[in-house]
Amino acid sequence: MHQKKVRLTLEDFSNLQQRCMDVFKNMRIPQVRDPHLPSIADLPDSYRAKVALFGCGPASISCATFLARLGYTNLTIFEKYDYIGGLSSSEIPQFRLPYDVVSFEIELMKDLGVKIELGQGLGDDGLTCKAMKEQGYEAVFLGIGLPQPKHSPAFDGLNTSHGYYTSKDYLPLVSRASKPGMCACSSASLPSLSGNVVVLGCGDTAFDCATSALRCGAKRVYVVFRKGFTNIRAVPEEMQVAVDEKCEFMPFVCPKTVIVKGDRIVGIELVRTEQTDDGSWVEDEDQTVRLKCSYIISAFGSELGQTTVAEAMAPVKMNSWGIPDVDPVTMQTSEKWIFCGGDLDGVTHTTVEAVNDGKQAAWFMHKYLQSLEGLFVPKEPCLPKFFTPIDSIDISVEMAGMKFENPFGLASATPTTSAAMIRRAFEAGWSFAVTKTYALDKDMVTNVSPRIVRGTTSGHVYGPGQSAFLNIELISEKTCAYWCQSVTELKKDFPTKIVIASIMCGYSKEDWIELAQMSEKAGADALELNLSCPHGMGERGMGLACGQDEDLVRNICRWVRAAVSIPFFAKMTPNITSIVGIAKAAKEGGATGVTATNTVSGLMGVNTKGVAWPNIGKDQRTTYGGVSGNVIRPIALRAVSAIGNALPGFPVMAAGGVDAGDVALQFIHCGAPVVQVCSAIHNQDFTIVDDYITSLKTLLYLQSLDELQHWDGQSCPTVRHQQGKPVPKLSDLVGKHLPSFGPYVEERKRIIRQHKEQVPPLEQFKPEVHRPAITPKKPVPSVQDMVGLALSRITDYNSLDNKQQAVAIIDEEMCINCGKCYMTCNDSGYQAITFDPQTHLPHVTDDCTGCTLCVSVCPIIDCITMVPRTTPYEPRRGVPLAVQSVS
Amino acid sequence: MHQKKVRLTLEDFSNLQQRCMDVFKNMRIPQVRDPHLPSIADLPDSYRAKVALFGCGPASISCATFLARLGYTNLTIFEKYDYIGGLSSSEIPQFRLPYDVVSFEIELMKDLGVKIELGQGLGDDGLTCKAMKEQGYEAVFLGIGLPQPKHSPAFDGLNTSHGYYTSKDYLPLVSRASKPGMCACSSASLPSLSGNVVVLGCGDTAFDCATSALRCGAKRVYVVFRKGFTNIRAVPEEMQVAVDEKCEFMPFVCPKTVIVKGDRIVGIELVRTEQTDDGSWVEDEDQTVRLKCSYIISAFGSELGQTTVAEAMAPVKMNSWGIPDVDPVTMQTSEKWIFCGGDLDGVTHTTVEAVNDGKQAAWFMHKYLQSLEGLFVPKEPCLPKFFTPIDSIDISVEMAGMKFENPFGLASATPTTSAAMIRRAFEAGWSFAVTKTYALDKDMVTNVSPRIVRGTTSGHVYGPGQSAFLNIELISEKTCAYWCQSVTELKKDFPTKIVIASIMCGYSKEDWIELAQMSEKAGADALELNLSCPHGMGERGMGLACGQDEDLVRNICRWVRAAVSIPFFAKMTPNITSIVGIAKAAKEGGATGVTATNTVSGLMGVNTKGVAWPNIGKDQRTTYGGVSGNVIRPIALRAVSAIGNALPGFPVMAAGGVDAGDVALQFIHCGAPVVQVCSAIHNQDFTIVDDYITSLKTLLYLQSLDELQHWDGQSCPTVRHQQGKPVPKLSDLVGKHLPSFGPYVEERKRIIRQHKEQVPPLEQFKPEVHRPAITPKKPVPSVQDMVGLALSRITDYNSLDNKQQAVAIIDEEMCINCGKCYMTCNDSGYQAITFDPQTHLPHVTDDCTGCTLCVSVCPIIDCITMVPRTTPYEPRRGVPLAVQSVS
Repeated sequence: MHQKKVRLTLEDFSNLQQRCMDVFKNMRIPQVRDPHLPSIADLPDSYRAKVALFGCGPASISCATFLARLGYTNLTIFEKYDYIGGLSSSEIPQFRLPYDVVSFEIELMKDLGVKIELGQGLGDDGLTCKAMKEQGYEAVFLGIGLPQPKHSPAFDGLNTSHGYYTSKDYLPLVSRASKPGMCACSSASLPSLSGNVVVLGCGDTAFDCATSALRCGAKRVYVVFRKGFTNIRAVPEEMQVAVDEKCEFMPFVCPKTVIVKGDRIVGIELVRTEQTDDGSWVEDEDQTVRLKCSYIISAFGSELGQTTVAEAMAPVKMNSWGIPDVDPVTMQTSEKWIFCGGDLDGVTHTTVEAVNDGKQAAWFMHKYLQSLEGLFVPKEPCLPKFFTPIDSIDISVEMAGMKFENPFGLASATPTTSAAMIRRAFEAGWSFAVTKTYALDKDMVTNVSPRIVRGTTSGHVYGPGQSAFLNIELISEKTCAYWCQSVTELKKDFPTKIVIASIMCGYSKEDWIELAQMSEKAGADALELNLSCPHGMGERGMGLACGQDEDLVRNICRWVRAAVSIPFFAKMTPNITSIVGIAKAAKEGGATGVTATNTVSGLMGVNTKGVAWPNIGKDQRTTYGGVSGNVIRPIALRAVSAIGNALPGFPVMAAGGVDAGDVALQFIHCGAPVVQVCSAIHNQDFTIVDDYITSLKTLLYLQSLDELQHWDGQSCPTVRHQQGKPVPKLSDLVGKHLPSFGPYVEERKRIIRQHKEQVPPLEQFKPEVHRPAITPKKPVPSVQDMVGLALSRITDYNSLDNKQQAVAIIDEEMCINCGKCYMTCNDSGYQAITFDPQTHLPHVTDDCTGCTLCVSVCPIIDCITMVPRTTPYEPRRGVPLAVQSVS
Repeated sequence: MHQKKVRLTLEDFSNLQQRCMDVFKNMRIPQVRDPHLPSIADLPDSYRAKVALFGCGPASISCATFLARLGYTNLTIFEKYDYIGGLSSSEIPQFRLPYDVVSFEIELMKDLGVKIELGQGLGDDGLTCKAMKEQGYEAVFLGIGLPQPKHSPAFDGLNTSHGYYTSKDYLPLVSRASKPGMCACSSASLPSLSGNVVVLGCGDTAFDCATSALRCGAKRVYVVFRKGFTNIRAVPEEMQVAVDEKCEFMPFVCPKTVIVKGDRIVGIELVRTEQTDDGSWVEDEDQTVRLKCSYIISAFGSELGQTTVAEAMAPVKMNSWGIPDVDPVTMQTSEKWIFCGGDLDGVTHTTVEAVNDGKQAAWFMHKYLQSLEGLFVPKEPCLPKFFTPIDSIDISVEMAGMKFENPFGLASATPTTSAAMIRRAFEAGWSFAVTKTYALDKDMVTNVSPRIVRGTTSGHVYGPGQSAFLNIELISEKTCAYWCQSVTELKKDFPTKIVIASIMCGYSKEDWIELAQMSEKAGADALELNLSCPHGMGERGMGLACGQDEDLVRNICRWVRAAVSIPFFAKMTPNITSIVGIAKAAKEGGATGVTATNTVSGLMGVNTKGVAWPNIGKDQRTTYGGVSGNVIRPIALRAVSAIGNALPGFPVMAAGGVDAGDVALQFIHCGAPVVQVCSAIHNQDFTIVDDYITSLKTLLYLQSLDELQHWDGQSCPTVRHQQGKPVPKLSDLVGKHLPSFGPYVEERKRIIRQHKEQVPPLEQFKPEVHRPAITPKKPVPSVQDMVGLALSRITDYNSLDNKQQAVAIIDEEMCINCGKCYMTCNDSGYQAITFDPQTHLPHVTDDCTGCTLCVSVCPIIDCITMVPRTTPYEPRRGVPLAVQSVS
């Protein structure tokens, strides 16, 4: 079958990044210096050098942040305006870059002690580079951008009173009136435009002006530009907004004369531009076009302009464009103590480039400042990364006398096929590994192929969402001698890692003793007895052939217990009536603990000719294999928690569908201090442990923050929304219930717009508050503290109270009127949801029995919730009971 | 957590529809008349009336198809040109509407016996409406479209030799040269353009001209139009293609004069158009703009024009626009025997509307033709639907003496909560239903809530891709009397449906006898003994408490066998070591068969506070529930096939993850003649059975087509492709291996383009052949024939041959260079794939052990395949074996 490839687009990545940042912002975690670096107190005086940075935009923020991470403690940013963020705040509209995104970056910088002086611009009141030097500043960073608009002679003599703006006049007015929290001007209002507005230019700024103009009252906006559409420089997404908002476009013209009547602009005369055959552009004065308009906004870019600012940079040498000459590697100007970055350097065009300028400048400023004291920095640039208190959380855990650096290890499976792989896994951060199962040489195996196949259960066909695998792979094809030698070498090279030898024999006392003792002698920290391989080995009387019988398990454990002194774990099969019975037998036999569980025996499917995959050889035969992946997680969670409740404190290693840090926490809550991973590595590689470690650290840290106890881990409570955008409750605004599809969408939009128009933009949204950062008021729990936390609430059915009933409630603002709740309630439930044929609004009736199916099929998470039932529940018996029932 | 709503867009739906049609086309299934309609032979003479349709475009095709389905046998379409399809063929470019899409529609029409006469246009050689009448045609349909281009006086005297085309001249030339199979003109070549091309207009046709012009050699295309972008009428997707292909746009101008030098166009003079305040558009002759160009293509729409064609319609009355006056309901002209539809009626603008015209005309023509013979048609229009031989396939099956209309029934679960629901399910097409389990009144239950929750395993969060549910719902809350009464009523009202009563008791002979006999007396076709409910009931000694013990199962079956004479099935629990053992016990006890399986016991998960969902009451307690959905399918398939192999011929009803027709076939292959469904109904509603029935019929039908034996059911073999588009093997073309990312993409495109340029467009692709339709040369198998077909190949591990090894092979043209195969081979496999750091091309080395992981994680289906190993497989033992192994 053909299948369309799915590639994440840049937009998808941006959305993901933004989502991550939003969540992190709301956690209010501070930035701190990496504690692995020398402490501030231990750093030489050179780190206390005074550094001045001019302009609080992306370049300076980046430069100051990296200097502060290095350990510099005397950093001051001087900003001309009464707000921070530079052009990102003043010239990019709120709907494209919300102010709190910018302010959060600055809060993170301030976490490291950087100071900001507002209302102090370069050139103001004697604030010059020279003066800074005199005041003892040892280095200066110029990150002031280009403050003046470029000017066309066609607009000489015009100003805002005529209806003429430059983008540099216009956009800051829009920002001040629409960015809550940006400045103290809480009464600012949007510049008022009307009629036709002509925007000149076709860069990002021009499109920002055009779309902002519509919000300021323009009836129609014309984007007018010199070249054709194929020469537009703005990013396509920017232009698309203007297209979507019905701006008009006039290509191949440039401004000639502005037509003014009675001090107001009434139109503009344009001349045609044309590209000659040699590619150059010419203007043909004979071909003119007129456009009626009331306002003109020119967006032709910026320059340094103002002489006072330029003079304040002295003695910096200027180049032929009148801007500082900057070394593109060191970001140094002609003065080695003055650095420069961002728009001012003349080569930087984007925020990303400006941030990189600041980063580069930070390294070379560091090098310069240290050299002043005769100190040297490494040749290879190396700047400290972002660090928070979460990174310092200890997630080590002890089990059966063994200390695990973290709870994540490799299951005895394909990721431990060879010692070299285990070695790489340890280097990647895994704390333990269970070797691929080995046997005595007389039991040596040879695999068939194909043998490991993709699951056919739901989920993406690849990547982390792949739900299952099935394998008919046997134990290791390598010899016992290979593995014993490997165990010795691994323990020698990785003394802090835990190496567990997985071994398997038939039901033979001598064999188990021999193999267990060889492995102990090799230096294994512990053994795992494979009593559960679901395919192949059972037919030889090994694997699950032993593990399904309590007596055999008890005896094998006794033999091993008598033979070795290291801890050992029996690996349980889930293909059994009572896993608890087997675990008890293992415990009785002296096992240190158990591993729950091995794979689940299954058949993935057959094709339309009745042939399974995998199938072997010409006869296309198959056999039952082991199903792994998150599809078996409910079975593994059941097994681990059942053992946890039946044998409190008995060590359990969990396995089965661990594919994230929060899943590990679930297994820990169910009683297993450590978890084993395999299928998730198939779906990616060893590096996933990084995510798991960070995730688990975060989950533990969040437990200590009282302010976030209404979150579920990293998930904040759901805000009422439609298509991801917060919505008010319409029935509160207009006393009317309105669905969110078809013609109603426009009506909803109108009501919300009207509602918004009554409130000035600055008051509509409270700026989010991300600081002060929250700090734990109680200790951050350890992994050990979390072990078994869920067990007391996992009980038998009869302990559940059928007097405390719940019913469903639907949030009609979040509802997308898809009807799924109605459909499932009708054909799978209790016919307790009505569905209005016109509005498609579902409504839960008194017939609701609380079955929860509507919640379980609704596409919008938290749109339907279960709330306690306030009236007694009377089941509908159909025909009255003949006798009284037992409950 | 917020969650972005996913709604299928119109484009998604179109893609799905197109995909379905593509697959269906390649199956070469003919259209037939619905056999439920009276046969042609039985129809009165009125159905043999001669009908003529002019113009073989969408309107006539639609009209003729519906008439043919009604039973008319004397239908002839007269087409002016030597190709079929009308404007869809001649004026829509191949890349937008491939010719074989059009021709397939016509083949389906011809399947019903409609005749086509090519090269015979209305008005040609005395072919007039009057002449048709004289030749005995009793009705005529005019579907000729608008044959003449609209003309602007600015272009008077210009023709193609000057470089002037209308869209109606230009597009057919493009079509003839680029649509393989369209006409006999196999040597046609694209019109050759060069330099600047000006396209006038901004409708769909204009954009078709613009994008085609680029393919005909234009250096630059200017789309020039009167109004602004906000007035563009073309669908946005159409315009987007022109934007993507770098066309230029000139709004607000209209043509004034063409500048001609030496018989060739060299430019065009345009005047500015402007919208006045009252909304009307004016031209300002003073503002002119010139554009250099070598070619002009005008796309200003069409008209009837030609007098010979208009005259041939006589005596039809024309309206003031010079086109036939048509009744918009009956599509009749002033002459009641002449009907008209498509562009010619003046109100139709799209293909969809034209098709609807033809459909409407068909009904009223039918009415008219019948009235001629004094016969009357029903008042309510009713036209026969599409029908194929597949629709007639019998999928009934017999099991245990019961005849099932189809293998699909409702499991004993929430979809059978009440008799009313079963009633609706029967009406929807389900062949059987197992009632929700009921007990004697003394065992009456009351549920807790919440109780049915969404799975947390991979897959979409809603809809058919939702992978799992977990429930802690008990048996029915309704009384035994209610259910017995319901069974009686259901059997009375639906005698052809199978009603199975699901019953449950504790381990009490008297109870089982009483309940079984009551149910038999009520009229149940069969009983299902619920010995497997995984939660709640077990604690009362019911459900799986009985079903996990072979002795109890055997005894209960004996009691029931002695008590009733109807068939009964024991419902198996999968939560057991040996399901075969229990099935054997049931058989020994006299059970007619078994149901495999009930849900799998599990715990879906706990939140970061260690609280599970569902949780009950203030204590937030939970208990293990039953996991259902496709995650348990591998377990159910194993159970069904294991019972099938152990107890050949013993009836099995399958349950567990049936969510499609082909899944049902898998269970049938594994030995279960019928299947029970529940979770898939949660995810949608009872209507899913329609899809399942059609799917199963198709799968059986396809088994009988020798020509499609290389397909897997409805999946045709994968064609080598990149992003869904077929690609040649580059190394064959240029002897060079090239990846498909970054800079290489352009190089690949260039090579493929160069390759294409050497071959005329008409020879590049062989037109697909869809006719003659394939007909079965052997009998279509019945469901019964399929039962157990897979069983002989499902064997024990030792029957698999480890001498017949396989290795992986990667198709580098299909590869998207993502590196997943390399990553998994490295960290989960055998380090047998190299990954070129520059080209990102993976390569399988001799170290491949055939583990198949690369195949199982590759995002591109069939990009990696397993092929037989040609050299002997030597496992890497690490350290040589000390002793000889057993295999």
